[in-house]
Order: sequence, then structure tokens, then C-alpha cells
Amino acid sequence: MFCMVGERINTTRKRVQQAVADRDAAYIQQDVQAQQQCGAQYIDINAGARIGHETKDMQWLLEVVQPVVTVPLCLDSPDPKVLAMAYERVQKPPMINSISLEKARFDAMAPFLEGKKCKIVALCLDDSGLPKTALQIVQRAETIVMRLAGLGFSRDAVYVDPLVQPVSTDTKNGAMVLEAVSEIRKALAGVHIICGLSNISYGLPKRKIINRTFLSLMMAAGLDAAILDPLDADLTAVLKTTQMLLGQDLYCAKYLKAFRAGELPG
Amino acid sequence: MFCMVGERINTTRKRVQQAVADRDAAYIQQDVQAQQQCGAQYIDINAGARIGHETKDMQWLLEVVQPVVTVPLCLDSPDPKVLAMAYERVQKPPMINSISLEKARFDAMAPFLEGKKCKIVALCLDDSGLPKTALQIVQRAETIVMRLAGLGFSRDAVYVDPLVQPVSTDTKNGAMVLEAVSEIRKALAGVHIICGLSNISYGLPKRKIINRTFLSLMMAAGLDAAILDPLDADLTAVLKTTQMLLGQDLYCAKYLKAFRAGELPG
Repeated sequence: MFCMVGERINTTRKRVQQAVADRDAAYIQQDVQAQQQCGAQYIDINAGARIGHETKDMQWLLEVVQPVVTVPLCLDSPDPKVLAMAYERVQKPPMINSISLEKARFDAMAPFLEGKKCKIVALCLDDSGLPKTALQIVQRAETIVMRLAGLGFSRDAVYVDPLVQPVSTDTKNGAMVLEAVSEIRKALAGVHIICGLSNISYGLPKRKIINRTFLSLMMAAGLDAAILDPLDADLTAVLKTTQMLLGQDLYCAKYLKAFRAGELPG
Repeated sequence: MFCMVGERINTTRKRVQQAVADRDAAYIQQDVQAQQQCGAQYIDINAGARIGHETKDMQWLLEVVQPVVTVPLCLDSPDPKVLAMAYERVQKPPMINSISLEKARFDAMAPFLEGKKCKIVALCLDDSGLPKTALQIVQRAETIVMRLAGLGFSRDAVYVDPLVQPVSTDTKNGAMVLEAVSEIRKALAGVHIICGLSNISYGLPKRKIINRTFLSLMMAAGLDAAILDPLDADLTAVLKTTQMLLGQDLYCAKYLKAFRAGELPG
């Protein structure tokens, strides 16, 4: 079962930033309902773009989003204080996005995470920077899963993010992360693997075809969750087609349902 | 380096059948030139659909196609006599499509193949019928590569076809052939792996999205050749994107070239 985390409520998106600045609840509510309708199992909420406003923007977003969706939220901030504040305000166990092996970040998150019932996105990032080899990604995944176990997180609660880096900056970046996902799938049974897709295509034209082809390859390697736009019909069509081709869609039932619902473009 | 075999000159296609029946050389020549222009490294010629006419149709096609393309041909027939006849009429070492482990077919092909300088598509098919497991596919691949070695074919001359079966008839058919390709890639270093794509989507709607997603997954597993339509821009865009994501496109040069040539739709 693939887990779609809907990425649209992010203040780096111009239209969302405007809606947040205007306290336009209707816009936000319509958007999150559409994401849920399209199959999002978590709604990501990122209020980081308006400098100095993150705490209040996050509070407001939580107030307007929660009454209109049934799925849980993915609380998205690099700031442990914002995450701790948001955690106190959610009605369902959320996904926390994210923790990493960076010492300051891990130490700041650990006290409030200990024993909590939530999912957590665990970045393969430490104080030495972005990973440079597949092996390094796998080792960091093993380390962070172990450290989170020490805080009471089962593997099923952990969504390892191998950190997708642009193929435009190094030809090997795609193959590197695909290999890492494949190895993490073998080395850490039961753990989830998540990523954002769009970083892979940074700096290149026609990014959407790269992103959706990459999703398919990552799923074959073992990815079972992604932070993506559930309203991108070309992308979700590739997602459903890939599930079918990997043997995860008995009698092609989900694919055929999507076809009958007019959800398969092209 | 991925090898595209252009599939369009096949008399099961209505328009091609008509052109062959009418001896419309201009139509055929324009089509094969377009396939070459779009990157086909072999042009497949299949004249099997007009019952009783295969030999003469094949002869005519070879006469009209060869003067207008520089790439070699892929001679496509289940009939060893037709293949032997066609082999005598080609100007460049062709690809022969195909041989299998079916006893009658193998025995009929062996005498004329022995010591020949050509590529050969080797189907994972024997007299017990279609393969039912990934292991069975791999075992048949090993057997046919060994038997072709006995006829003088190096691994580099052999294009193993694992036989793609529709995911609509068994949910596991996609995963089975993907696993088989991955295992053949490990077990038989230096061999090529080829397939036709469209059988995977037989019986389902929106077949093109299935075929191109499948191409991408098969390439990640180790496929390095395919019999496909080089004029399908959505398909070749996925092919180029996948090469880039697998680290086979240094500095994204081929992808960017395709973009600048207007070859990336969507």
C-alpha cells in the first residue's frame, strides 16, 4: 500500500502564501479537501516561507484544515519548536516532517518525541552534509532508525528519506538514490521509505516527466510513500500503473477503477 | 546504450498491410526513414499477416526498404524458411527475430544460423509453453544462450526475450518478468535483453501509459533493447528520461538534446 502525502499546502507556493497572508480559509479548505479526494493519506502543512510568521501561520492552518478533512496531517518544519507546538494542536496522530541526524536538530526533537504516537520522516542527513554514496545513505538510514527506536519508534512509524539530489548536478545522483532505496528495503525490513520527487529534476526542463518517471523507478526499488501533488493526474496515473506492474493491484482493480473514474489522462 | 528496434513495418498493422498489398513503396520508404530519423537502430520487417503471401511480401519489403535506410534490418518471422530466404537478401548483418527452444523451430533454424554473423532474438519459449515463473524464464534464457553458443553466437549477439505476458491475465505477470530480467542481467553477463512492450497491457484500457511505464521499469531491471514504435514521442521521452535517471546520460546531454529538438512532449 503506497502512502501519498499531499504537498500542496506549502507557503513556498505563491498562491498558498497569499491565501495564508489573507487568512483565506475557503481557499485552503477547498485545496485540502481536493487532495484528500484524490487519495492523499496525509496532508502536509508547511508554513515556513513567511519569515517571522511560521508559528502563527502554522496555528492558523491547523485551525482551518482540521475541521474539513478526515486524514491526519504531516507537520512540516525544520524548526523543532514549531513542530512541538503543532503537535499539541493536532486531533489525530500526525506524521512529523522531519528529524535528521544533525546533532542540534536531533537533540532538540528528542525530548518531545519520546514515547509519542506519531509517524516520523527521518532524513539521511547529518552534520557532514548531503550523502555522497548509496552506502552512506544506507548507513545513515540504519543509524537514524536505531536512534528513533531508542525513543520508542517502531520501524513501521519511521519514514526514511534518502534525500533526492538533482541529476543535473551529478549524472550518478539518480542511480545512487535508487540503489540506496533498494538496499534500505533489504537492510531495514518493515521501515517505510519516503521522498520528495521534484528535487531530482532541479535545473532541467520538462520537470514533470522526470518526476513521474523517477517515482516509478523509486517504487520499483522499494519506495512506499512520497510527498507529492495528489492533483497531478499524470503523476498519480503513473503511480497506479506502477503499482499494477509491480503486482500490487489484484486483478488490476485499482487501475480499472481509476480508468472508469476518468482519472487516467493521455 | 539502449537499442531501439522499430516495429512499425508489420503487416498486422492495417495501413502497412494495405501498402504492402498495393505495393506502395513510397509509403513504406517514408515510414522506415522516419523510424531511422527517430533513433531506430534496427528496422523490424514482419510480413506475416497476409496468409500465403509472406515470402513474396517479405522479398518486396526488403527490396524497397534497403535502398533508403542505413541501419540494418530485423527479420521477423516465426517461419525458419522465410528467415533463411530473407537472410540471403540483406545487405548488412541483420537481427533475426526469432529463435526459441521449441524443438521443431530450433532444429529448423540451426543449420542456416551456424557460424552466421548476425544478432538473434532468443525467446524464452519451449514446447511446454509460456513460462510460469521468473526462475523458469531465467533457466530457459541460460539454456538458449548455451545452445546458441554451440552455433557460434557470442553473448553479445544474443537478445534474450523473456516473453512479456499480460498483467490483465495474472496480477503477477509484471513482477515476474521484471524479476526475471533482473536475474538474467546477473546470471548472463554480456547478453542483451529485449522485449516487445505492448503485450503487458493487453486487455486493459489506456495501454500507452502502461507500455511506457513498463519500459521504464524493465530498463531499471536490465532491459537494454526493445521492439517499439520510435515515432511514439511519449514513449521515447520516457526512454530518454529513464536513461538519465539510471545514470546512463552523462551531463544529461541526451535529455537536453532531445528537449532542444522539441522531442519531449507534455
